[in-house]
Amino acid sequence: MAEGLPGKTPAESAVQMTELVLPNDANILGNMLGGRVMHYIDIAGALAAARHAGRVCVTASMERLDFLHPIRVGDVIVLEARVHWAGRTSIEVGVQVYAERVGGGERRKTCEAILTYVAVDDEGRPTPVPPVIPTTPEEEERYRQAEARAAARRRRREE
Amino acid sequence: MAEGLPGKTPAESAVQMTELVLPNDANILGNMLGGRVMHYIDIAGALAAARHAGRVCVTASMERLDFLHPIRVGDVIVLEARVHWAGRTSIEVGVQVYAERVGGGERRKTCEAILTYVAVDDEGRPTPVPPVIPTTPEEEERYRQAEARAAARRRRREE
Amino acid sequence: MAEGLPGKTPAESAVQMTELVLPNDANILGNMLGGRVMHYIDIAGALAAARHAGRVCVTASMERLDFLHPIRVGDVIVLEARVHWAGRTSIEVGVQVYAERVGGGERRKTCEAILTYVAVDDEGRPTPVPPVIPTTPEEEERYRQAEARAAARRRRREE
Amino acid sequence: MAEGLPGKTPAESAVQMTELVLPNDANILGNMLGGRVMHYIDIAGALAAARHAGRVCVTASMERLDFLHPIRVGDVIVLEARVHWAGRTSIEVGVQVYAERVGGGERRKTCEAILTYVAVDDEGRPTPVPPVIPTTPEEEERYRQAEARAAARRRRREE
Amino acid sequence: MAEGLPGKTPAESAVQMTELVLPNDANILGNMLGGRVMHYIDIAGALAAARHAGRVCVTASMERLDFLHPIRVGDVIVLEARVHWAGRTSIEVGVQVYAERVGGGERRKTCEAILTYVAVDDEGRPTPVPPVIPTTPEEEERYRQAEARAAARRRRREE
Amino acid sequence: MAEGLPGKTPAESAVQMTELVLPNDANILGNMLGGRVMHYIDIAGALAAARHAGRVCVTASMERLDFLHPIRVGDVIVLEARVHWAGRTSIEVGVQVYAERVGGGERRKTCEAILTYVAVDDEGRPTPVPPVIPTTPEEEERYRQAEARAAARRRRREE
Repeated sequence: MAEGLPGKTPAESAVQMTELVLPNDANILGNMLGGRVMHYIDIAGALAAARHAGRVCVTASMERLDFLHPIRVGDVIVLEARVHWAGRTSIEVGVQVYAERVGGGERRKTCEAILTYVAVDDEGRPTPVPPVIPTTPEEEERYRQAEARAAARRRRREE
Repeated sequence: MAEGLPGKTPAESAVQMTELVLPNDANILGNMLGGRVMHYIDIAGALAAARHAGRVCVTASMERLDFLHPIRVGDVIVLEARVHWAGRTSIEVGVQVYAERVGGGERRKTCEAILTYVAVDDEGRPTPVPPVIPTTPEEEERYRQAEARAAARRRRREE
Repeated sequence: MAEGLPGKTPAESAVQMTELVLPNDANILGNMLGGRVMHYIDIAGALAAARHAGRVCVTASMERLDFLHPIRVGDVIVLEARVHWAGRTSIEVGVQVYAERVGGGERRKTCEAILTYVAVDDEGRPTPVPPVIPTTPEEEERYRQAEARAAARRRRREE
Repeated sequence: MAEGLPGKTPAESAVQMTELVLPNDANILGNMLGGRVMHYIDIAGALAAARHAGRVCVTASMERLDFLHPIRVGDVIVLEARVHWAGRTSIEVGVQVYAERVGGGERRKTCEAILTYVAVDDEGRPTPVPPVIPTTPEEEERYRQAEARAAARRRRREE
Repeated sequence: MAEGLPGKTPAESAVQMTELVLPNDANILGNMLGGRVMHYIDIAGALAAARHAGRVCVTASMERLDFLHPIRVGDVIVLEARVHWAGRTSIEVGVQVYAERVGGGERRKTCEAILTYVAVDDEGRPTPVPPVIPTTPEEEERYRQAEARAAARRRRREE
Repeated sequence: MAEGLPGKTPAESAVQMTELVLPNDANILGNMLGGRVMHYIDIAGALAAARHAGRVCVTASMERLDFLHPIRVGDVIVLEARVHWAGRTSIEVGVQVYAERVGGGERRKTCEAILTYVAVDDEGRPTPVPPVIPTTPEEEERYRQAEARAAARRRRREE
């Protein structure tokens, strides 16, 4: 957590993206390519991180990702990204992905992702970011879990 | 207004899109191409219309559009689309476009657009859509203005 | 009209674009997305304006646009852009859009658009453009109408 | 030459494409990638062939291609495709490529390409095409040269 | 492991992809977007899985991913995908990503990913895949580790 | 051949690209557009040339190209590029293109291309490249043929 920078709540940097799945996003059977979903996830996460940091943010890692349902060409996908936690120069963001069939009723959760980003200055060097101020019990819980994952990532790097 | 179909409020179909402006979206001076903004506007509007109609919607017209400020490569653009009004098979949608500079502070309104869409069935023929139920004074005002524009478009076509 | 710069005729800057409609340009029913058409319209118009100005031109506004017929994947679209009129730093361009079905006979007009562009220098500041010299009765008529629209846009901005 | 089908002149199927060179079309030094130029050449040629044949046309070959000048990001490229000659199911098309620097004066020829296409029916099988009717001395000269190249290609395949 | 289908070695389905990082793949500082890398990783993995299965394969999950070094516009990235293990209808694939700076010497490992895919028939239903036959000590080691991860994924799903 | 620079073998710069053919790469009948294949050929060749030269390389020419078989949406295409020969600042590269149908068995050669590239420095001026050291009889044969083609291209330019 960078001392001196005023903190921000997760709501201040939350991002919602809505996208139409086009033919080029899909395989020959009309299923959206997993990599296209990941591409959108990363952009949604990077935008939330950049809003929090007030800086360009580069992707450092992504936790395990499970695709629960196939997404089809013509579906609408909705991505919601919110900042969980911030260290000195790194930020953890969670991204929820939902798919809706046009005319087909309810929205289904397709996957959820957890990514870390590093804020960088104009020369591309890591640069301090504001602390995250959780304001609801859910945000506090996510903050604690993110802090534990950050410690695990640090141990992993040191090995 | 299609009788028989249960009405929907504008909030039920509202769409928010957040996009990162990439180099290919811009001219050689780094300004986002107007046509790329229009492309995003049309997708946001079409998604709101499709949510309202529960059908694929095709673009029928766009009212006059003024670009108030340039958008730059690296900016984040946010589009908010909401349904104003629906006729028998057509829907009017308003789209607000904002741009944010990463680290550069507040969000500026770049333009606002008004588009009409026609809901189509699987053979591409116009198909009835639910009525719009405005629930706030602003939504009622937008409904009335949209109804007047629809009448003007009808007169224009008849000439 | 920028005094001192030698005038140009509309023919000197006219642009013709021919494009093949690919699957990604279309919705799930195979209809070209309205926003993709607008994107092509804006590029055709910006190229005509840039040829007239000898400068990069940025989009300032687009008049109301009506789509008369759907365009299908696999169609060929043809765009014709020509300069109508120029003010001190701004240029009005008209763009006609036609669609042809391969093997399906004649060309149909899909829509026509009127856009204004502003010529900019290397720092992105508005910069003077040559006057337009209409050479046919049609060009003179378009010049007069464009001049009236420019006055209306000026009044609109002053309000 | 398919007997029975009424002939067409090269002017009836001529194609002009105008494109803006965007950052993604270029290498890191800002030079347009040769493969992107070839991609545009093939589309322009395929559209001229399709207009002549009234059928979808697939690329069969391209003669040797020399790039005479580099094309830069921000340049406008203009492609002109015209049909030279047609066999029973195949069509030879020539494509001229020019580049203009915005504000930088005259247009320079960048390369010229000669391609052959085969017209196909809805099952993808070769299908007869109309004969080409040259109407100027230049078109007659191109017709004769194309006929000679077609004979050479036939000999090459038989070897 | 699907009984009856003849097994395949990892070498029979190995995939190598080489890609040029273009401006649109990068943020405003010229760093390749993490999501674009993930998109390439998923395609490389899906192609190896499809070669192994002789079927279209859809992405089911991706293990944790760490980006070790930034990739820059103009760099060449090389992806190597090889099949580790196969269950009845699912396949685990490992993808190594390397980046080379043109003229800048050696290749650096950027990240490594582990993904699972499910082979599907023409209706999109899971379909049996051939067993994997490891032929080197490294392949046997990867096979054993993949089998353990598959068991862990199964337990996770059952919870 | 640039004296002083240490030579490289063709194997040191060989490139393999594997790509999935997506809907936007194809015409309305599902056949891959010839120009998209050429685009991939040029990138594969430019990467091999850049690896040999340690410099960005721009496309100078492509020899005649014949498409032997159609490629279909959903196919996997594999491109193999290797350097044949180098002059003082130019490099000849051969690219083989194969297509595989997923689940459809063997790989078919689709076309082969021969391209020349010029290595350029940061100002875009031609710059010396290392000599090519053929190490197998096939490489020696290709070297000799490439040298003869280079002499023919020189004569063509001088005419």
